[in-house]
Amino acid sequence: MKLKVYADRMSQPSRAVIIFCKVNGLDFEEIEVRLAKREQYSPEFKEINPMAKVPAIIDGRLKLFESHAILIYLACAFPGVADHWYPNDLSKRARIHSVLDWHHSNLRFGAAKFVLNKKLAPALGLPLNPEAAAEAEKILSSSLSKIESFWLKGSGRFLVGSNQPSIADISLVCEIMELELLDEEDRTRLLGPHKKVQEWIESTRRATRPHFDEVHKVLFKVKENLQKRQLLGTGASSGTATSHKTSLHSKI
Amino acid sequence: MKLKVYADRMSQPSRAVIIFCKVNGLDFEEIEVRLAKREQYSPEFKEINPMAKVPAIIDGRLKLFESHAILIYLACAFPGVADHWYPNDLSKRARIHSVLDWHHSNLRFGAAKFVLNKKLAPALGLPLNPEAAAEAEKILSSSLSKIESFWLKGSGRFLVGSNQPSIADISLVCEIMELELLDEEDRTRLLGPHKKVQEWIESTRRATRPHFDEVHKVLFKVKENLQKRQLLGTGASSGTATSHKTSLHSKI
Repeated sequence: MKLKVYADRMSQPSRAVIIFCKVNGLDFEEIEVRLAKREQYSPEFKEINPMAKVPAIIDGRLKLFESHAILIYLACAFPGVADHWYPNDLSKRARIHSVLDWHHSNLRFGAAKFVLNKKLAPALGLPLNPEAAAEAEKILSSSLSKIESFWLKGSGRFLVGSNQPSIADISLVCEIMELELLDEEDRTRLLGPHKKVQEWIESTRRATRPHFDEVHKVLFKVKENLQKRQLLGTGASSGTATSHKTSLHSKI
Repeated sequence: MKLKVYADRMSQPSRAVIIFCKVNGLDFEEIEVRLAKREQYSPEFKEINPMAKVPAIIDGRLKLFESHAILIYLACAFPGVADHWYPNDLSKRARIHSVLDWHHSNLRFGAAKFVLNKKLAPALGLPLNPEAAAEAEKILSSSLSKIESFWLKGSGRFLVGSNQPSIADISLVCEIMELELLDEEDRTRLLGPHKKVQEWIESTRRATRPHFDEVHKVLFKVKENLQKRQLLGTGASSGTATSHKTSLHSKI
């Protein structure tokens, strides 16, 4: 039975798993679980993941959720996945676990909360929450500084000093890509000071293309819609479907 | 060079790592980093973990932090650690990763925030925050329900249906032990409805004794001090050093 990946490309961990599968040529079926339509709460999906979150996978008899656990499983279960994605070397592997664990309470927590409360909430029928956004910005800024000064220190272009990308690079970069939804001013304030972070995003994108751009298309579509929404009433609108790739190149 | 474990037994992930080392007879040196004295911010410790958190380890040339990453590393790097702690079987291992990842944003997040804002803050010179406590209680209650109904479903006494404990059992149970610091009423309200959770805590304690009780002694000492503080003025005080084990048996 073919590997099934349940995902919504608007979810950053879903994108990480899909990009990993595509880059490594895994034979898989992508099944869309539309979060905007609350499909994650359907009885059918909760049989797969009772936590009602994407991504989740079914491989044979195994049902699995939590994107880091999925990425590790796929890297181990599918022969042909190059070692650099999840190295056999114990010390290298340990450092990848360390950055993935750190990610949960730092970059992930800060970025998701900031984007929601600063920009995305009205599109989901929720009010913006400046207080929550300010609190999240502290965590997000501190996380980006730590990536710049610690996780990207050394000569390697990728996390934990590696010359080749690992599952951690895909996971964390997909998270940071959420910042594309913000207004230019906010994104520049957050990412501007972090040159290594910007180079690392570009390195990860290059190492996983064309899949990285293709899987992120939906994010840029939503960004465009958010911008149109904001400009509504002025008669102006920005961007076109074909400008997405240009944005991706020029803005990060 | 002997494995060095930098820890404070008042930190739940520190306790998990120390218990794991002791239960598996690892040759290690425990080095106390006193959080109450802010020793985690010393330049010496930040050389080991720039995130200024415990636990952290040094093994040979490897410096490592994040307790889940440490537990996985130790289980793999030390021959003689029984397979059940971190199974070689890919599906079993994947499910352990899944519960450990889930832990970060659920049980861990809810329990730590609840205990701090409901009880511990004044002892740290901070004000109690009923609003934050109420918010955290929702996450904590939901997490305990999910452990009861999903992670402990099946016939096994341990997480993900296992008959023997894994690193995930130690990690999550050490987190729940923080609830010992709460008033009896709060702990009963939270844990009372969850019989399987209570049995699982006891199973994990039995599977790791006498180290579980010994490593948790400091927590019960702090609990006693908190109770004394609360009763100050009435002339009453509760518990003695020798009653800790009794509490551990009877209250969870």
